[in-house]
Amino acid sequence: GFASGSRKVTLIPGDGIGPEISAAVQKIFTTANVPIEWESVDVTPVMGPDGKYGIPQAAIDSVNTNKIGLKGPLMTPVGKGHRSLNLALRKEFNLYANVRPCRSLEGYKTLYDDVDVVTIRENTEGEYSGIEHEIVDGVVQSIKLITEEASKRVAEYAFQYAKANNRKKVTVVHKANIMRMSDGLFLRCARDMAEKYPEIQFEERYLDTVCLNMVQDPKKYDVLVMPNLYGDILSDMCAGLVGGLGLTPSGNMGLNGALFESVHGTAPDIAGKDLANPTALLLSAVMMLRHMELNEHADKIQHACFEVIKEGKHLTGDLGGKAKCSEFTNEICGKL
Amino acid sequence: GFASGSRKVTLIPGDGIGPEISAAVQKIFTTANVPIEWESVDVTPVMGPDGKYGIPQAAIDSVNTNKIGLKGPLMTPVGKGHRSLNLALRKEFNLYANVRPCRSLEGYKTLYDDVDVVTIRENTEGEYSGIEHEIVDGVVQSIKLITEEASKRVAEYAFQYAKANNRKKVTVVHKANIMRMSDGLFLRCARDMAEKYPEIQFEERYLDTVCLNMVQDPKKYDVLVMPNLYGDILSDMCAGLVGGLGLTPSGNMGLNGALFESVHGTAPDIAGKDLANPTALLLSAVMMLRHMELNEHADKIQHACFEVIKEGKHLTGDLGGKAKCSEFTNEICGKL
Ligand SMILES: CC(C)[C@H](C(=O)O)[C@@H](O)C(=O)O
Ligand SMILES: CC(C)[C@H](C(=O)O)[C@@H](O)C(=O)O
Repeated sequence: GFASGSRKVTLIPGDGIGPEISAAVQKIFTTANVPIEWESVDVTPVMGPDGKYGIPQAAIDSVNTNKIGLKGPLMTPVGKGHRSLNLALRKEFNLYANVRPCRSLEGYKTLYDDVDVVTIRENTEGEYSGIEHEIVDGVVQSIKLITEEASKRVAEYAFQYAKANNRKKVTVVHKANIMRMSDGLFLRCARDMAEKYPEIQFEERYLDTVCLNMVQDPKKYDVLVMPNLYGDILSDMCAGLVGGLGLTPSGNMGLNGALFESVHGTAPDIAGKDLANPTALLLSAVMMLRHMELNEHADKIQHACFEVIKEGKHLTGDLGGKAKCSEFTNEICGKL
Repeated sequence: GFASGSRKVTLIPGDGIGPEISAAVQKIFTTANVPIEWESVDVTPVMGPDGKYGIPQAAIDSVNTNKIGLKGPLMTPVGKGHRSLNLALRKEFNLYANVRPCRSLEGYKTLYDDVDVVTIRENTEGEYSGIEHEIVDGVVQSIKLITEEASKRVAEYAFQYAKANNRKKVTVVHKANIMRMSDGLFLRCARDMAEKYPEIQFEERYLDTVCLNMVQDPKKYDVLVMPNLYGDILSDMCAGLVGGLGLTPSGNMGLNGALFESVHGTAPDIAGKDLANPTALLLSAVMMLRHMELNEHADKIQHACFEVIKEGKHLTGDLGGKAKCSEFTNEICGKL
């Protein structure tokens, strides 16, 4: 738990629409009297001695000190050889589990009702190892790296999450029929962990099967845990079921801290025009509050946000409405 | 083109429900006077000198001679170290492109209307290379292998397919933002090929974006081409949109032959009970007929099948009906 009084939280507003939606979240938090103090840091990439862009040291220091942060979307520097800053942050802070809850929002209609799934994605290795070679001209190998340590860690996180959040079932998603050793190891770690949580149901499913079932009947699933790339895909797909990345939160859990972020893009076309939807960042901030055990504030803000969406009178353009970001934000503040 | 007269086609009835649905297809083909002669072969795995199960030589010879085959579902031998026979067949015959058209069936309602996409999957390498190592205890690497040769070949197939089938657009699906070298090579091959087909639109999309868009608006896509694993996932997902693997055909195209197959399982629980749905195998056989330039027969049979589904009076259990496999089959025959 956290001591009372105001805690510092690093805020990385980000690029494009990042500053507007961050300001919206700050306004809502202020209105709700959330006892946190924002430490805003700039992560405009700086060029290192190796000629590659990276995260500025001040930003790294802030997250390392506060151990908790909220982040808007970041642009990836253009040009060959620059890796995504989003990924750099995951590596820098060893954010080993990416958690994305996807729930249908009452009042916002999609093809699917009552979706309620949580993807938990291994966030540090797998297909994202970054190890690639051109063996000979025209023959390339990329290495998918699976370790027992990271697999156990994320499996444990998944079961703890399920337990703490009263979820019934954990599904491990894999292709161990093809990648027998790597996905086999991941699968075994999940299986072993499952034994320690007899109160949580456990099932094993192939990735392709999950993709098929998810579009037919998402109610088949509850909490899902999986290697990095599979999580990238499934989390986006699940977001699609409930309305897209503008509505779904994300949290990156590390050993020494956690970073919550909206995973949509920077939307340069509408940046600075007061047109963006702050919901994904706001719900990520709500996840952050729960992580800080500020559950009452979390509930209150989440409820206000859901109410405004349900009423449907002040929705932003992406949700088919005509409201500005600031109007939507004011509506939420009005409910607090 | 093919000379007139009857051509031999290898038939691999397969396991579980395989024999029943194969018999259904044979009956429909006979009724439609399709000028082919079936050569039925058994692929019950035989144990080789290395102690692993493999495809019997007689089956291999038959496909190599006839250069065209139809195949029901195959069981994977249980036990450590046995690779899927489905995969063994793809490797053995160098079936480099897997083609899966997914179209909404009139009269069979799902959440999606008017889906009409075709996934074209690289079928020989990528994440399916089978190369894996345990580096040290608890640290495993699997190798994703991408070659220029295979990438070009499947890209060329995709554009030729689009052209021959009057499709408007090819989308290459990748994660070259993460796997810069391997998916980067695949992407470049697709890009280069696109230049030779100026009449076909070309676009590049991230796999996660495609998954998200596909569940929201499948009409965004037309023909999609991608590395092996991405195709495994997307093809199942697309099948889910239109009703599942029991309704969607699949063709594996090789340099020296082609093998058409239903990609659903062997359904041991209903095997031998005259309850299976032969649609996926029948539509795969229809794809085969088009490949053999027997388009009139293909159209006639496809039309009859679609009509029976549309009428909805003689559907098998998987489609919510009560008809036996044989009744459904007889209905189709009745329309021929
Ligand atoms: C931006 C990109 C590198 C990233 C990923 O592939 O992980 C994104 O899709 C995500 O899911 O956070
Ligand atoms: C059976 C399995 C090995 C196979 C695959 O993963 O390719 C299947 O899912 C498919 O799509 O044909």
